[in-house]
Amino acid sequence: MKIISGGVCAAKGFKASGVHCGIRKNRTKKDLALIYSETIATAAATYTTNLVKGAPLTVTKNHISDGKAQAILCNSGNANTCNANGIEVAEKMCELLAKELNVKANDVVVASTGVIGQPLPLEPIEAGVKPLVEALSVNGGDDAAEGIMTTDTVKKEIAVEFEIGGKVCRMGGIAKGSGMIHPNMATMLVFITTDAAISAEMLQKTLSTDIKNTFNMVSVDGDTSTNDMVTVLANGMAQNKEITTEGEDFDTFMKALNTVNVYLSRMIAGDGEGATKLLECSVNGAKDETNAKIIAKSVICSSLFKAAMFGADANWGRVLCAIGYSGADVDVNKIDVSFRSAKGTLDVCKNGAGIEFSEEKAKEILLEKEIEILVTAGDGDGKAQAWGCDLTYDYVKINGDYRT
Amino acid sequence: MKIISGGVCAAKGFKASGVHCGIRKNRTKKDLALIYSETIATAAATYTTNLVKGAPLTVTKNHISDGKAQAILCNSGNANTCNANGIEVAEKMCELLAKELNVKANDVVVASTGVIGQPLPLEPIEAGVKPLVEALSVNGGDDAAEGIMTTDTVKKEIAVEFEIGGKVCRMGGIAKGSGMIHPNMATMLVFITTDAAISAEMLQKTLSTDIKNTFNMVSVDGDTSTNDMVTVLANGMAQNKEITTEGEDFDTFMKALNTVNVYLSRMIAGDGEGATKLLECSVNGAKDETNAKIIAKSVICSSLFKAAMFGADANWGRVLCAIGYSGADVDVNKIDVSFRSAKGTLDVCKNGAGIEFSEEKAKEILLEKEIEILVTAGDGDGKAQAWGCDLTYDYVKINGDYRT
Repeated sequence: MKIISGGVCAAKGFKASGVHCGIRKNRTKKDLALIYSETIATAAATYTTNLVKGAPLTVTKNHISDGKAQAILCNSGNANTCNANGIEVAEKMCELLAKELNVKANDVVVASTGVIGQPLPLEPIEAGVKPLVEALSVNGGDDAAEGIMTTDTVKKEIAVEFEIGGKVCRMGGIAKGSGMIHPNMATMLVFITTDAAISAEMLQKTLSTDIKNTFNMVSVDGDTSTNDMVTVLANGMAQNKEITTEGEDFDTFMKALNTVNVYLSRMIAGDGEGATKLLECSVNGAKDETNAKIIAKSVICSSLFKAAMFGADANWGRVLCAIGYSGADVDVNKIDVSFRSAKGTLDVCKNGAGIEFSEEKAKEILLEKEIEILVTAGDGDGKAQAWGCDLTYDYVKINGDYRT
Repeated sequence: MKIISGGVCAAKGFKASGVHCGIRKNRTKKDLALIYSETIATAAATYTTNLVKGAPLTVTKNHISDGKAQAILCNSGNANTCNANGIEVAEKMCELLAKELNVKANDVVVASTGVIGQPLPLEPIEAGVKPLVEALSVNGGDDAAEGIMTTDTVKKEIAVEFEIGGKVCRMGGIAKGSGMIHPNMATMLVFITTDAAISAEMLQKTLSTDIKNTFNMVSVDGDTSTNDMVTVLANGMAQNKEITTEGEDFDTFMKALNTVNVYLSRMIAGDGEGATKLLECSVNGAKDETNAKIIAKSVICSSLFKAAMFGADANWGRVLCAIGYSGADVDVNKIDVSFRSAKGTLDVCKNGAGIEFSEEKAKEILLEKEIEILVTAGDGDGKAQAWGCDLTYDYVKINGDYRT
């Protein structure tokens, strides 16, 4: 497995583009993105568990119920959620694009992100689909990654190359996500493309399995969005023997997908709204994986701990506190905690009680951009990782007046 | 029922005091508080559900297992939690006070609040109990309220007068709590005194019932503390016929307790760390009370919504979003949302979709200090209230470097 460039266009037969069509006021910000496969692709997706669901999710679910899709259309600046005409608008978006691409509207995946509860006007999209399709290019991955950003400060893309049955396969992904991030069964917006051949059933299985250890272990602010969605298109152009059962090829594909998803999960967490640091909590020795996950996620979700990390304050008591209220089955008297970064590792708690440590060393470690919180539970061999970010002035600033 | 002055000393036979003993570095901040009943009192308490429990909670639970107590000792500046010698220190604190007061150590309730995981030195307490006992006075409620404060910006106290069986009874309470507030079965530190006569069993019943609708419906930051505790002492000096069963007297007592607890809950929420606003979410028309509570609490816990309130931004989509991921059994297409304050009421969402409203009017309403979020679910007659606060720059500032 090697990391390559090209993002969502790295796999054979995929093109992408991004333009400004006018949904956002700021003309320098792209607000419409397209990913297109030359041939019809196998499709799989997972969606938010929020009862309030964006209209595009309902339309997409319907469109890929046959396990097939050929294009992904996504706008930023408006979530098309909690609007009376949301479904109608999402369907119309697919029709407009389908006509321009000469594909079936039923083969279009549609997604929206931005403000909730403001009707999404069709005019900018009507005007935008033509230039969007004209701009399609194998170098368009960057533009598409930009077109789906909201409060994101960096583009999030990755691609990997791997081999299945002697055939070179590629997989690439882009993501957006910065606030309202606490996915449950699905996540933010992530679009993944691959030229590997895999059945719809196996594709859905790999995705549904992997997100539990990747996107569902990310939290920026504890708010599960109404529009979370991860979609994978696999067009089979790598010409490997189609993966139709579990086995060696399935495992290789899973590993590629996991590499892409862990990378994007870390990028999303590290680019959390206002974040200055990526927090990675690694739990070992929990009773089982479920308890390890509960512990890891509780730590990276604690507002108090997140604020302490912003201040580079080694307040490990808040880690213990978050473990204590997490609901995990854990013996708090057996917990060890260490902080680790590029500057070294520091033990701060043994068997649930504080130990002496150098505050200077702690500061040095915690002033880094990526902080690992190592929790050892001493209860078994369950392990898990979760990703989050610090809580900063800028989170408050960004969200104190998001709509204007 | 009428509101009276006197706080925790309003009821007959109670005295209180607060001094600086040296646990905190700042000599102008009181850090040791005492509440004392002339006669032995009936006692009840509820505690945090956090698996990591402060040592004082274990000691207190043991001391009041006989349903009796005569004094409450509380220090701020150090939580005496996650320390190897915590229990020993908490027991010693009770012994030191008991000797000075000439009561039994077993009749002392002990509580601590402050940093977790730093050994609590006994020396300041050894030196402090004598002046603390000497300062006991029926006017000492204010000093005690001050002695238990940490990041609190205001003292939190109230007292009420009511009648049971023709006898005038009084009840008063003090509270501390500003951060790490998301109680579960217990809450922050709250000490309540009353001269009403009530059996230990009935006292515990009133307390356990009432906190579900009061302190457990408060959240500042979603972090359930390790040291939450509510204690009530009832010394019977009002000479009413002891309440030993449910009935009219029990109901009157419940009403008094609820008045005290709602008042302190609102004060705690409004004084949340860094808060500029009190948020009160009132849910009506939910399937039942349980679902109403889940909805109300999810709204006031949403970081995104809290940040929007700080910015006086009528971003009601975040209210819908929080209801959608709350886990409540609710039809999101039947939800209405309005914002209300001293400046008026504004409808912003009908049947789960946005309606047009004046942004100027919204701003005017949301710039007030107390904001009500009115949610109507249209699913039944379940109702509930929850209290929280906005998320501000100062929350981050206070918690970015709490220990130093």
